[in-house]
Amino acid sequence: MQIAVIGASQPRPESLALAEAVGRELARRGIVLVCGGGTGVMEAACRGAKSAGGYTVGILAGNDPSEANAYVDIVICTGMGYGRNSLVVKSGRAVIAIDGAYGTLTEIGHALGEKIPVIGLNTWSLVKEGAEDSGIERASDPVDAVKRAVAAARRREAVPT
Amino acid sequence: MQIAVIGASQPRPESLALAEAVGRELARRGIVLVCGGGTGVMEAACRGAKSAGGYTVGILAGNDPSEANAYVDIVICTGMGYGRNSLVVKSGRAVIAIDGAYGTLTEIGHALGEKIPVIGLNTWSLVKEGAEDSGIERASDPVDAVKRAVAAARRREAVPT
Amino acid sequence: MQIAVIGASQPRPESLALAEAVGRELARRGIVLVCGGGTGVMEAACRGAKSAGGYTVGILAGNDPSEANAYVDIVICTGMGYGRNSLVVKSGRAVIAIDGAYGTLTEIGHALGEKIPVIGLNTWSLVKEGAEDSGIERASDPVDAVKRAVAAARRREAVPT
Amino acid sequence: MQIAVIGASQPRPESLALAEAVGRELARRGIVLVCGGGTGVMEAACRGAKSAGGYTVGILAGNDPSEANAYVDIVICTGMGYGRNSLVVKSGRAVIAIDGAYGTLTEIGHALGEKIPVIGLNTWSLVKEGAEDSGIERASDPVDAVKRAVAAARRREAVPT
Repeated sequence: MQIAVIGASQPRPESLALAEAVGRELARRGIVLVCGGGTGVMEAACRGAKSAGGYTVGILAGNDPSEANAYVDIVICTGMGYGRNSLVVKSGRAVIAIDGAYGTLTEIGHALGEKIPVIGLNTWSLVKEGAEDSGIERASDPVDAVKRAVAAARRREAVPT
Repeated sequence: MQIAVIGASQPRPESLALAEAVGRELARRGIVLVCGGGTGVMEAACRGAKSAGGYTVGILAGNDPSEANAYVDIVICTGMGYGRNSLVVKSGRAVIAIDGAYGTLTEIGHALGEKIPVIGLNTWSLVKEGAEDSGIERASDPVDAVKRAVAAARRREAVPT
Repeated sequence: MQIAVIGASQPRPESLALAEAVGRELARRGIVLVCGGGTGVMEAACRGAKSAGGYTVGILAGNDPSEANAYVDIVICTGMGYGRNSLVVKSGRAVIAIDGAYGTLTEIGHALGEKIPVIGLNTWSLVKEGAEDSGIERASDPVDAVKRAVAAARRREAVPT
Repeated sequence: MQIAVIGASQPRPESLALAEAVGRELARRGIVLVCGGGTGVMEAACRGAKSAGGYTVGILAGNDPSEANAYVDIVICTGMGYGRNSLVVKSGRAVIAIDGAYGTLTEIGHALGEKIPVIGLNTWSLVKEGAEDSGIERASDPVDAVKRAVAAARRREAVPT
């Protein structure tokens, strides 16, 4: 199973610890971590995954594989800039969003638009007509986020397309 | 000048009238309207533009030019699905967001991430850490939205890149 | 009707005259010229089109509209690099290839793969198993190229999809 | 090291054996095989790689991971159709082209345009102005193809960018 982790390249410091714990927990369950391959949340999540013997995929904005952070096993070069964001979420059976700037917002939108489950940790809230959109499922901590993501991915697998 | 209009393919009914008025106002100012070429807000905005002698561009999700709504002059076929959303906003000097579902959310994210001004009419609010993100500039009505978009686009032109 | 013109950004000098004549001839027939918006064949074709009162679209590799050549009316910014090449050919009902380097080769491949007619002027030949592939229809001169492109586009319009 | 294998989804029968042998040889050397994840040459190459304990990546045209052939370990979903072809070649340090139709032609063009080495086995020849383009390096058999691809990839690594 592949799960995507999304989040800012320059997040708040506390988000790095969350991301590392998410990566570690995914690896413990034998799940492949897919991300944008960059710095910040992406790097911390990959570092966590590798520390627990996991496997990581980075889908880069650019063309140069050396742009990937040091914890990426498989490097996909797109040359599409942030246009690659939709590929990151589509390549996960579920998505865990940690913190995040506008790039993460595009990824949340692409995931929800494709009915890919999004689990949120300290990330955006989406409000329309005065009410919060219910698309993002909130997690209380990294282990809870991974549990929810796996459960959502399994429910999705169970539905015939 | 080119300005992008984004919004849902199946919006609330009142949003169609807003979109048509935005299209008309853009046309009156000689501005080319860029959109995703589909139905709903996109079609209403194009219809408004054509009713005032304007010019319209539709950047389609699919490969078949006949998918464009009847008011699109120039058809760009991408075959990229919602991956084309970033192209829509990048092809405007400013963006007017009307109503909108998750696809519109990706477009707002791509625009703000690229520092392209976004003017909002009855659209998403983005909340992080309990505070509304200030990225979207709110307009009171269609004419106000076009005025704000033109002003923002001009400020952007004035800044050397 | 939209027809795409593809070719190198740094072509052989004689190709520039061919491209300019193709652009002029498209404009005389009221056809919108779609291209990659860059220099060389793209710029010469757009200049020809504008000299005859035509209309031009440039689908740029980058994000900055000022990268378009001076004869582009509508600018589409993709930020996809050469990944935008498939969009150029898909946005024409037929394609005219003039001269061309590897980028043009990708465009020829994308067009033929999508069954979009390709008319060639001094461009690549494609050989497999010792025989020339018959996909590219050869033209003798710019006016012949435009005639063939229009005829091929009309045949394509006549076929139900 | 990652090396891309490209070729037709419906190749001549003899090309399947070539592809399987290429996959096996890549795996023996510990090289990750990147491909489009589909049938034909892609599936045969992945089957060869897995038979020798290798690792495979499929960059799909569509959005549904179940479209990947049965021998793909890591699935990237793009939803970009053949627009994903440039990502396949950019994600290899070298490319091995086996047989191939127009899609493969786009991949050869994208690779050569980005200065990514292309090794050819029974694939296209590119002719311009009566002379064969020297971009594709010809291999005599699958083992030779892998040797040449690895050597070309190493030369590329050695050049500072």
